[in-house]
Amino acid sequence: MLSSKADDFAHKVRSCDQRGLARVLSMVENGHPLAPSILHSLYNPERSGLTIGITGPPGAGKSTLTNRLIMHYRRHGSKVGVIAVDPSSPFSGGALLGDRVRMQDHASDPEVFIRSMANRGHLGGLSGTTRDALEVLAAASFDPVLVETMGVGQAEVEIASLADITLLLLVPGLGDEVQTMKAGIMEIGDIIVLNKADRAGMEQLEMSVNASLELIPDQDDRPQVIRCSAQTGEGVEKLTDAIVSCASSGTWGKAIAQKRTTLILNGIIREKGRELARKLILDRYGSVEEAIESILEGKTTPYRIGEMLSGFLKNKRENKNEC
Amino acid sequence: MLSSKADDFAHKVRSCDQRGLARVLSMVENGHPLAPSILHSLYNPERSGLTIGITGPPGAGKSTLTNRLIMHYRRHGSKVGVIAVDPSSPFSGGALLGDRVRMQDHASDPEVFIRSMANRGHLGGLSGTTRDALEVLAAASFDPVLVETMGVGQAEVEIASLADITLLLLVPGLGDEVQTMKAGIMEIGDIIVLNKADRAGMEQLEMSVNASLELIPDQDDRPQVIRCSAQTGEGVEKLTDAIVSCASSGTWGKAIAQKRTTLILNGIIREKGRELARKLILDRYGSVEEAIESILEGKTTPYRIGEMLSGFLKNKRENKNEC
Repeated sequence: MLSSKADDFAHKVRSCDQRGLARVLSMVENGHPLAPSILHSLYNPERSGLTIGITGPPGAGKSTLTNRLIMHYRRHGSKVGVIAVDPSSPFSGGALLGDRVRMQDHASDPEVFIRSMANRGHLGGLSGTTRDALEVLAAASFDPVLVETMGVGQAEVEIASLADITLLLLVPGLGDEVQTMKAGIMEIGDIIVLNKADRAGMEQLEMSVNASLELIPDQDDRPQVIRCSAQTGEGVEKLTDAIVSCASSGTWGKAIAQKRTTLILNGIIREKGRELARKLILDRYGSVEEAIESILEGKTTPYRIGEMLSGFLKNKRENKNEC
Repeated sequence: MLSSKADDFAHKVRSCDQRGLARVLSMVENGHPLAPSILHSLYNPERSGLTIGITGPPGAGKSTLTNRLIMHYRRHGSKVGVIAVDPSSPFSGGALLGDRVRMQDHASDPEVFIRSMANRGHLGGLSGTTRDALEVLAAASFDPVLVETMGVGQAEVEIASLADITLLLLVPGLGDEVQTMKAGIMEIGDIIVLNKADRAGMEQLEMSVNASLELIPDQDDRPQVIRCSAQTGEGVEKLTDAIVSCASSGTWGKAIAQKRTTLILNGIIREKGRELARKLILDRYGSVEEAIESILEGKTTPYRIGEMLSGFLKNKRENKNEC
């Protein structure tokens, strides 16, 4: 019964019924009980649709580039999905966020689906929600699905990295980002996009990015660096070529189904594991807050609670045998 | 029997037996079965000893400042613990890391205990190990315990934030870090230290840091900004005063036992939860890799595995009733 309901929703997503799609995304976002079954029904690690993450410091031109990419892919007849993620905002759903006005150019185009997502404190967090929303839009045959994040904090980088390919945007004139982002650059970004190519300081930015990238020992692991101007569209073609070549190149292209699956499974292990541990603490103490109270009263310690959690599976196995 | 052994080790730590202490830190680092009992025995959320995290971009002078702080606290008769953490290195233990030569000034001082820690792939990770090592050194009455991280990536910031108070070091001339670290600055740092105060560009750096901090709506939440020169020692006294006033100020001082406990318990929920979820997957599939294989073969999906994990506690409760 439940599963046939889930199949109905999955069918609506696959046939790209706009209202059904919006409904399923809300279910994912709100942790609706049917959501896991719908996601199960939709999941295909070998889907051909590509997901592209876009991150970078405020002012780097992420929205402008997103808009430019939508235009590019629409011209090539693709259906484009966009998830705009703002970890610092509690608002989401249908409403477009502040500076996404330009995206409204596409609001009347049924082949462009734009959704904004925010932090609503749901278990699993924004990262889990975005990851699952990507799968839903890909299942509705949006290709590519773009994920644009609002800032470049820890949460934002993590979210952009959920996509198959991540673009890190940098611009001259915001200062020498590279010094401080050295560590970051090597962690994020399949492609580094130097935006606002006409601005003074581009040469210097490019040199300093390249110098940072030389710290990556294996040349094949170094991200490509592409100059463009999201404003004028110059270089965007080169960027989309780089995305295609990145997605199909060598081991990366072959391993993509495995990469996607590993990423999702690890996320689920993290979320469900935390849920399990919290439930066990609930069973014992009523709530995590009461457990903390117990510790502060000197009745137990976090380490004893940890041992209780570790011991749980052992006990459970013994109980099973007794049964 | 086990617990009396753990008590022996705890006693050695409390009486600051150097070899015992080193041994216990290795046990914590290697996930030795006795480690949780030792930590349980040592844990005191109301310990008076303070822990101080030091983070910042490469070249900001973290080692020099650490050295300066050691000298300062030694002059005041305190025993100082230092944990030097390098997330990118697999080497740890007794050996001092590359540029920590200056710390060897203190190598013969029994009241200074220096330990370097690195990523050894142990479950719970470097973050958990560092968190627990801080408690061990505090229990051995090192006060303060300094945690210095090597870079300013995600892992490093997370680790520095395990301490009671976090110092974020910035210097002029590494470019306008602030633009890109805006998000970061608001997340990290109880105190922002502008190091190399004699360098050109300090005024500009300070202005731009202050401009960033103005984005934090509540004035009381804004970190203090302190200029110093770790090289000459100028301003270090002002910094240590700021640390004291930060540690004892208002709600922060009162809430410290709760803050410590919450941080440790949340870490343990995360680590043990993941361990539980992985064990359940192991029971069913043999290994996480085999679970991924199953997904790629189309036999299941990550979402179905998630439902299995969620269902587990429910089943367990039903089993219990049957028993």
